[in-house]
Amino acid sequence: MPRYPDLNPFVSQPNRSSYSTLAALAYHRGGQVYPLHIGDTWLEPAIPCRMESLTIADHPGMHTYSPVQGRMELRRAIAERTRMTGDQPADVDEILVTAGATAGLFALAAAMLKPGDEVLVIAPYWPLIGNAIKCAGGQVIPIPFFETAKDTDSVIETLNRHITSKTVAIYWNTPHNPTGRLIPRDWLAAMAAWATQKQLWIVSDEVYEDYVFSGQHSYSRPFAPDRTISAYSFSKAYGMAGNRVGYLIGPAAVMNGVQRISRNSFYSVNTAGQIAAEIALGRAGQDWVNHARDLYRELGQYAASTLGVDEPEGSTFLFVDVKGALDERGLNGFLQDCAKKGLLVAPGSSFGPYDHHIRVCFTCAPPEVVRQGIQILSACIDQ
Amino acid sequence: MPRYPDLNPFVSQPNRSSYSTLAALAYHRGGQVYPLHIGDTWLEPAIPCRMESLTIADHPGMHTYSPVQGRMELRRAIAERTRMTGDQPADVDEILVTAGATAGLFALAAAMLKPGDEVLVIAPYWPLIGNAIKCAGGQVIPIPFFETAKDTDSVIETLNRHITSKTVAIYWNTPHNPTGRLIPRDWLAAMAAWATQKQLWIVSDEVYEDYVFSGQHSYSRPFAPDRTISAYSFSKAYGMAGNRVGYLIGPAAVMNGVQRISRNSFYSVNTAGQIAAEIALGRAGQDWVNHARDLYRELGQYAASTLGVDEPEGSTFLFVDVKGALDERGLNGFLQDCAKKGLLVAPGSSFGPYDHHIRVCFTCAPPEVVRQGIQILSACIDQ
Repeated sequence: MPRYPDLNPFVSQPNRSSYSTLAALAYHRGGQVYPLHIGDTWLEPAIPCRMESLTIADHPGMHTYSPVQGRMELRRAIAERTRMTGDQPADVDEILVTAGATAGLFALAAAMLKPGDEVLVIAPYWPLIGNAIKCAGGQVIPIPFFETAKDTDSVIETLNRHITSKTVAIYWNTPHNPTGRLIPRDWLAAMAAWATQKQLWIVSDEVYEDYVFSGQHSYSRPFAPDRTISAYSFSKAYGMAGNRVGYLIGPAAVMNGVQRISRNSFYSVNTAGQIAAEIALGRAGQDWVNHARDLYRELGQYAASTLGVDEPEGSTFLFVDVKGALDERGLNGFLQDCAKKGLLVAPGSSFGPYDHHIRVCFTCAPPEVVRQGIQILSACIDQ
Repeated sequence: MPRYPDLNPFVSQPNRSSYSTLAALAYHRGGQVYPLHIGDTWLEPAIPCRMESLTIADHPGMHTYSPVQGRMELRRAIAERTRMTGDQPADVDEILVTAGATAGLFALAAAMLKPGDEVLVIAPYWPLIGNAIKCAGGQVIPIPFFETAKDTDSVIETLNRHITSKTVAIYWNTPHNPTGRLIPRDWLAAMAAWATQKQLWIVSDEVYEDYVFSGQHSYSRPFAPDRTISAYSFSKAYGMAGNRVGYLIGPAAVMNGVQRISRNSFYSVNTAGQIAAEIALGRAGQDWVNHARDLYRELGQYAASTLGVDEPEGSTFLFVDVKGALDERGLNGFLQDCAKKGLLVAPGSSFGPYDHHIRVCFTCAPPEVVRQGIQILSACIDQ
């Protein structure tokens, strides 16, 4: 049976998102656009981490391939970091450098899942983890989380309601995209103990570990290091999302398996980006993070108070219930009204069954642009 | 059924390759290593294409995300290039920038194939295309090609012997890795006509298009543009393999489908690398290619005459039959003997059923290192 002119059914389904239409609305009207739908930063990276600072005199061969596991210098620096942050100390063979955390989680899903496997995903959830699971033939089982979880008992009760004989893994994310919440340490401990008892893999996405505004980030790997794979990133932490450098840490055998996918899915990670990442783990990068965190905290507080919601505990997002502002056109009508004013926000429906929510990033554009965008959003909600 | 502590069967199979053992042999003995197993270059990129030349003053925001399809400036420059090279002219929506051609072909296989689908692959073949097909659940059907194909009739006869009801696509590669051969224009025309008649997709890997030493490269897309997806790369062409920037060109609907995988498998391509690629398509890049081609041609001729084989027509490789030099230990013994002298070459078995062959890259190291490596290889063969 010829496949031509079709592709496989997974990619042949029509795009659910009509987001490009909204973006066109915002951009084609002229005037300032407020791109609060994107998770990124307006800050340029620390000076020693910029491409213009990386010379072939200092780094001969810096435009040639790196090892598929990542540069040894970078993996050593990451291993060192795990010994300083309260994370589970890792050796270099437990670290796999990936083309952003996105590429790492995709390769991990492909290495771990067989068609029909179910993965519990705390919801609302980052859209790309859903797609990574689906690309591997797996089934996403969203667990309504922050709206139901009150304490460890209610958390475990929720998990128990969703596990089946097909469940092979649980995915969580803290500091949390899109809600800006942290998962408390005692919840994580209980969830890890539960996953251990149920013989599940744990996938913990901690790419916002450096952006905590109140409370403290708890690393997941120490609770169950033999079954936990955590994802980390230089993108958000150091203003280097365009470099596409992140990493996974987990058992060496798992990293070896993931690498057998990743050497095909992206081969190796951009070499200059890895050198920038090594430098970021030094003094200049840490100073940059501390400075950025102060700016981000202030913007997060401004956004929360303007919108009348709780301040973010971490990450760079707020997830806002706009139900009261929806008319018969539903969320899409609301998004259109925003776009006509130049404001782009992400629909809650991208993050699970959240048709009354939107996500805003408060670090995606210079502070004055973010503040104006938040004011426009506030006006749209109060209309 | 818990999966833990296992991964899926595909990645849980033991590694067939013991290559790291050979590399350890070569590197741990001390002294010069001749890494002729790697496909790369010793040349630094053209000055304006180096990371140190890309400033945030010229390119503000150059460390933030690019669009998932690739930067519009780069796609426009690529579209322009297709109008100058004799390739099928492409529009920007027919171009998808990928994290190297590797990542593009992986995402294409995932977008195109269903489990059980068969893909005809002309052999010997680049190992990663085999893995990309297998990762997507497909079956690689190697077609012994250069050893049997004498003219269009014998080519088509070979193809007819391998097609089944499960065949959905054919993959070829010209200039050819690993043999250094070009597929002649009339063969390509016949193969494309045959694939059209059989309703197959065509995947044409042309990443060595710029490295032709005798004869002329023929682009595949003009023969059957509605069903052909071609892969291209800045890695080999411009000495930027570490940047991880390549691209696919094919029908817009296919690129849209592939992008639905690639936005998960690597999200977007390193932004600075894309800017370097744009610059490479200008004058400085073309001068660099012309200079590199002259150096490569001379090295290829030296390698071929020293080893007593035909000169390469293109690419940066020779595929050498070493049957006469094998003892009862087979190819692995030969590779070990080479490694003990510091010489690393790629085993033919990585490229299909070629247990008596090795591949050497004649551009992976400075000319004097390549020449010494080739002399060592020649001595190993004549022993």
